[in-house]
Amino acid sequence: MTRKAGPSSPGRPPTAGSSLGLHRVIDPPGVLPQAAWQLDPSSAIGPDEVRVRVDRLNLDAASYRQIRETYAGHPDKIRAAVLDIIATRGKMQNPVTGSGGMLTGTVEQVGPDSPLGLRPGQRIATLVSLTLTPLTITDSLTRWDTRSEQVPCQGHAILFARSIAAPLPADLPIPLALAVLDVCGAPALTRRVIQQAKTTPSAPKDLTVLIIGAAGKSGSLSAAAARQSGASRIIGVVPTESEAALLRDLAEAQSPLVDEIVIADARDPVGMATKVQAAGGPADVTVVCVDVPGCEGGAILSTAQGGTVIFFSMATSFSAAALGAEGLAADVTMLVGNGYVPGHAELALDLVRTTPGLRTLFERRTSEPGAPREGSQP
Amino acid sequence: MTRKAGPSSPGRPPTAGSSLGLHRVIDPPGVLPQAAWQLDPSSAIGPDEVRVRVDRLNLDAASYRQIRETYAGHPDKIRAAVLDIIATRGKMQNPVTGSGGMLTGTVEQVGPDSPLGLRPGQRIATLVSLTLTPLTITDSLTRWDTRSEQVPCQGHAILFARSIAAPLPADLPIPLALAVLDVCGAPALTRRVIQQAKTTPSAPKDLTVLIIGAAGKSGSLSAAAARQSGASRIIGVVPTESEAALLRDLAEAQSPLVDEIVIADARDPVGMATKVQAAGGPADVTVVCVDVPGCEGGAILSTAQGGTVIFFSMATSFSAAALGAEGLAADVTMLVGNGYVPGHAELALDLVRTTPGLRTLFERRTSEPGAPREGSQP
Repeated sequence: MTRKAGPSSPGRPPTAGSSLGLHRVIDPPGVLPQAAWQLDPSSAIGPDEVRVRVDRLNLDAASYRQIRETYAGHPDKIRAAVLDIIATRGKMQNPVTGSGGMLTGTVEQVGPDSPLGLRPGQRIATLVSLTLTPLTITDSLTRWDTRSEQVPCQGHAILFARSIAAPLPADLPIPLALAVLDVCGAPALTRRVIQQAKTTPSAPKDLTVLIIGAAGKSGSLSAAAARQSGASRIIGVVPTESEAALLRDLAEAQSPLVDEIVIADARDPVGMATKVQAAGGPADVTVVCVDVPGCEGGAILSTAQGGTVIFFSMATSFSAAALGAEGLAADVTMLVGNGYVPGHAELALDLVRTTPGLRTLFERRTSEPGAPREGSQP
Repeated sequence: MTRKAGPSSPGRPPTAGSSLGLHRVIDPPGVLPQAAWQLDPSSAIGPDEVRVRVDRLNLDAASYRQIRETYAGHPDKIRAAVLDIIATRGKMQNPVTGSGGMLTGTVEQVGPDSPLGLRPGQRIATLVSLTLTPLTITDSLTRWDTRSEQVPCQGHAILFARSIAAPLPADLPIPLALAVLDVCGAPALTRRVIQQAKTTPSAPKDLTVLIIGAAGKSGSLSAAAARQSGASRIIGVVPTESEAALLRDLAEAQSPLVDEIVIADARDPVGMATKVQAAGGPADVTVVCVDVPGCEGGAILSTAQGGTVIFFSMATSFSAAALGAEGLAADVTMLVGNGYVPGHAELALDLVRTTPGLRTLFERRTSEPGAPREGSQP
């Protein structure tokens, strides 16, 4: 922790919690911005804050899916719902899924005590969630056709001293970079878990990795990270033949992202686990990257005793995971997918630059509004 | 996995999913019993099932607290609410918290293919959650005064082939054994995480362990497990002076369960983290054992970079944990508290038998209906 204690003084954070953004919390007071119902998105910045002119939001896959389905894909209603959340809460946090997303923009003003190393005019992406980022939208989202989770917009956002932001890479288109950075925690944690498993004496020599939602953004990046980390066999679960075709296209053109493709409904635990078993499972490491609820049991059932399940899906239910494993007498380590791992942005961008086919897959997902998204179920 | 495939035959499980109890799932079909809305609690057993005559339920702390608070402690309404859940769902799973609890009873009938090794007349406790256990109550819970999460009752429950049950120990009173077995996953996972941390080359030599809710059942057991596993310093957070007094009483009489007692509201992240810091934090391993929502941020903020947070509380929000850590740029490993770790029942019972003061603390909690419960907040 780098919080500064003591009374406020000119050029110093006004309170000990200022670096965390506590002073922006309106309701309920005292909680962290992520847990707050409402934040204050005022444009005037404190000495350790940064104001960003926002040009694009990237809604979290689970949140976008929930809103789109609630309003049956009706553009005006979807826009109104997102605007209402942001106006009411001072941040983009879907009250149903609890999740947010991230944004890109241009640094507008930097407080004298900001430790983030940013300068006005820089193009950046935030690497902390929208759920804790004070945000105001000023253009009524008129340029968003609502067919993609990427939302072109105008407005401003506030970064705290303890926020994280990354300058946008010059060599990649912004929608692509945003899509990659949005899920960059997934490949970083996947890599770490595989590397740790490989150095554990009791672990199997040949690691089988299962990616549930392998043709999605976080899933395909995690598959690439698993390959780079030396996984022996990568099994990818996708929900439909068209998602399978996406992966097969890559495999035919270049080296495959996964070794085995399994078409299964991740919400059908026994059905999926049986198919995974036939494809070389159970897995030593399972990575859950789909954006629908109810995938906990299938993930646990497809994982070997002593194995690890990484839950990245924001649709994961804590109690379903905890009690599901207990109910199956499954001795599996279950990780909450922490979106922050040091070096995560660089790793994910490098994977997209260097993994054959991965960029193509991402570009299809970010350029075609009607294309299937994040491991989407039918 | 030990599921048996192939067509059904006499004396064999009728379906591949039978050992998991899939045939008892009414709604929605195909999901695992834990994820189901409704189970079939019919008393006739299949060839690999066991029927238990139930005499006591132990409601999960988060579930009991939620129901008690919803009905403002009114006994008739609390009884009616629990009966309604069981009658409607065919299992005791609180629809708000998603959690259940466990039960004790006497084995009544054992199917010829049951692999559990039980015999009629044995007194047992189930070690799988009530959330997946078919259950019928026949006495309207008239003997339950609703002042404790332990519910004397009559009825029957069904165990599947893959369920887990433990014979009740002869040397401990049943309410005590039930209270211990209910939370036995917590000390087992705490011990495993500390042992793993101690063998990691990069880990600090002197491990600081933080137990949030240290005077509760899972918290005090986890503290004892941490001590036994060689933690250098154990910091215990409790919400009130009276809970602190419980721990101090033990410390004065015998060896202390924790080294430092911190009185703090676990829902106030900066407040708690500041006090933990003053008591020797941040922690290398943090164990969350309180039964109220909103403790994710404080736990993360009280944990050192590179440390581990184990979430045992069923009131944990997956998205609050995942996004909270990301928002704090906290490089912490976050574990979903799996209720099953091999050997967990034996470890927990042995801790209660051998740790000075721990049995006294448990007996106070199980014998005094008005006593504070599982790390309860004011």
